[in-house]
Amino acid sequence: MSFGTAEYQERIRKTKERMASKGIEVLLITDPANMNYLSGYDGWSFYVHQMLIVINDEDQPIWVGRTMDANAAKITTWLYHDNIIPYPDTYVQSDTKHPMDFISDILKQIGQEKRSVGVEMENYYFTAKCYEQLKKGLPEASFQDATLLVNWVRIVKSDQEINYMKQAAVFAEKAMNVGIEMINEGVRECDVAAQILHAQVTGTEEFGGDYPAIMPLLPSGEKTSTPHLTWTDARYKNDEAVILELAGCYKRYHSPLARTVHIGTPSDELKKLAHVTLEGLEKCLAMIKPGIALEEICETWTKSIARHGYEKEARIGYSMGLNYPPDWGEHTASIRKGDRTILQPNMTFHMIPGMWCDKSGFEISESFRVTENGCETFANLPRGLYVKDKTLIR
Amino acid sequence: MSFGTAEYQERIRKTKERMASKGIEVLLITDPANMNYLSGYDGWSFYVHQMLIVINDEDQPIWVGRTMDANAAKITTWLYHDNIIPYPDTYVQSDTKHPMDFISDILKQIGQEKRSVGVEMENYYFTAKCYEQLKKGLPEASFQDATLLVNWVRIVKSDQEINYMKQAAVFAEKAMNVGIEMINEGVRECDVAAQILHAQVTGTEEFGGDYPAIMPLLPSGEKTSTPHLTWTDARYKNDEAVILELAGCYKRYHSPLARTVHIGTPSDELKKLAHVTLEGLEKCLAMIKPGIALEEICETWTKSIARHGYEKEARIGYSMGLNYPPDWGEHTASIRKGDRTILQPNMTFHMIPGMWCDKSGFEISESFRVTENGCETFANLPRGLYVKDKTLIR
Repeated sequence: MSFGTAEYQERIRKTKERMASKGIEVLLITDPANMNYLSGYDGWSFYVHQMLIVINDEDQPIWVGRTMDANAAKITTWLYHDNIIPYPDTYVQSDTKHPMDFISDILKQIGQEKRSVGVEMENYYFTAKCYEQLKKGLPEASFQDATLLVNWVRIVKSDQEINYMKQAAVFAEKAMNVGIEMINEGVRECDVAAQILHAQVTGTEEFGGDYPAIMPLLPSGEKTSTPHLTWTDARYKNDEAVILELAGCYKRYHSPLARTVHIGTPSDELKKLAHVTLEGLEKCLAMIKPGIALEEICETWTKSIARHGYEKEARIGYSMGLNYPPDWGEHTASIRKGDRTILQPNMTFHMIPGMWCDKSGFEISESFRVTENGCETFANLPRGLYVKDKTLIR
Repeated sequence: MSFGTAEYQERIRKTKERMASKGIEVLLITDPANMNYLSGYDGWSFYVHQMLIVINDEDQPIWVGRTMDANAAKITTWLYHDNIIPYPDTYVQSDTKHPMDFISDILKQIGQEKRSVGVEMENYYFTAKCYEQLKKGLPEASFQDATLLVNWVRIVKSDQEINYMKQAAVFAEKAMNVGIEMINEGVRECDVAAQILHAQVTGTEEFGGDYPAIMPLLPSGEKTSTPHLTWTDARYKNDEAVILELAGCYKRYHSPLARTVHIGTPSDELKKLAHVTLEGLEKCLAMIKPGIALEEICETWTKSIARHGYEKEARIGYSMGLNYPPDWGEHTASIRKGDRTILQPNMTFHMIPGMWCDKSGFEISESFRVTENGCETFANLPRGLYVKDKTLIR
């Protein structure tokens, strides 16, 4: 287990507090990160339905999942084995049976069928069908949307969690250095991606890396006009930029990082874009401290780039940490206009003010934690546009 | 693009045929594999809502996604740029706006709000919230469950798709050989995983690999009692088994493969388990040909292992090919009791009769296509229990 039982129990306590404040008696958790956060459960089994059930007047949560994954729950969680309930394989990807029917039956058996039940309506792993089946199976329950309930507990990290993210940042730095080093004219995108993955997962001599919730993103040339392309087996050409976004991951905790590399001589336009973006990023980092609202950071960013004639529609960052595919973001607070979340110590964000134009783009990012009087970036890697004659342009 | 426009159009035609047979006029596709299958769209952007809309009386589908991903749609799809509709970033992970509201508005603008609308109720990327918002936004539409509608079109592969899966199998073999070679007492699990990922993604000199939809799974020791644990930074010990399940991936097409390695001298129990599993697998492979029902294969398996006193609850395989995280399976046909799907040429399956006991397990698998009169495995790797003095026990 990644944490002591006391830390898991404290998380359960905070979760129950939030449940009480929303009048939720039974919380059905499908988000794999939330399941991990409260129970320790860790396996690539989220492609079938599974659930952690937190009941307000029970000490321990109940894990429900596929029979073949029950041993994984015994191995990775702090739960009593009696609280690990497997469902038969006939429920898996079947057109006649649904795991939510099994879960409804369990809830009836333990007398929870008339209670106020919270479900994560906006989670990847809680499909529309899941909700329909649960409503059918528990007609006397009253359902409430509990989307992000546990995610909001996760937003302030413990010291142990921060340590894991620092470790992840060591892996991110290493992987980024490998990528920057390797990108050159004639090199295949896939070979760079492979070496980055290798660095992410070997980690250091002392600690190994976990798989990140998002694969390395490394669009090049015109593809830098959009951020979420992965790689192909094409070879890099001279006079094109490559955007690298990746994360180190340790015990499912992430430290994401983005940098941009240019092969050959960058255009004045790209140099300007890099300078403006970096200036904005650094102004934002400089103002961060407890008590500030996220929208204030975004305002600083918007003003900073507007001075140079630029604007940007998208948010410039988000809360992150523990997660599983397809996203390392926590989906709670975003650094954008209208988000009035107030910074507290040990909140952790990925600030990524990517700038994408019609045919090109520039990205640079930092992951950081809020400290008592400022912020601390997790990684420590020079900022700027990396040009492949080793010049670092600011 | 991975296929010519004619192949995409043929897929659209078949999809519309199925829509017609179900009385669906407008199909809202959220499954990233289905989006890719019909449009070519490929990006790690499925962590935000996006959709492909197929309308029965329109030639081209419509792509709707986040603004920053619209250029990715222009780069990777065959769609007219007019059919690529971006939604503003304010809809992303917001507690006040939902992308399905935007999509409802689009459907109203183009006069589709009173039609019969198919939605993929049981897809990871169609949350319970998505459905609630769509119902609110389109009160006059009649909704139908279109789960797996496109997946069933995908079940028979074209020759081009088969070629991609053969290429993926070359990567899978290479990655498996690297893993088997590297596993030894004292080696860290993460270092093996890293080398496997490196092999999967570098591919060959001619073709590069894509990220697989599932990360390498390599549980060891007691963890072999369950199939979906990934890796840690622990070191392998003498006298323990390691189960390796991984896939090669080329242009998002997979060829999965599993083998088991034992470090030191295997117990008679494990040797017997390996022998029984392999015998069952090979009997099943030998009987495969067009016209057979999937449940017949499972029956052969069940009888084969029963002769030795074993039984297995879980399905022993499933249709697979094109996919994105979190699963490479297609969720249509399974090799199990009650599945009466009839085999046709160019259907493709992963047959993985894993056997998990209380404290240990054994896995071996093959991916194959159904041929005109039998089957052809994609990979070509000796079958059996790999023992680290290089003995191959059958």
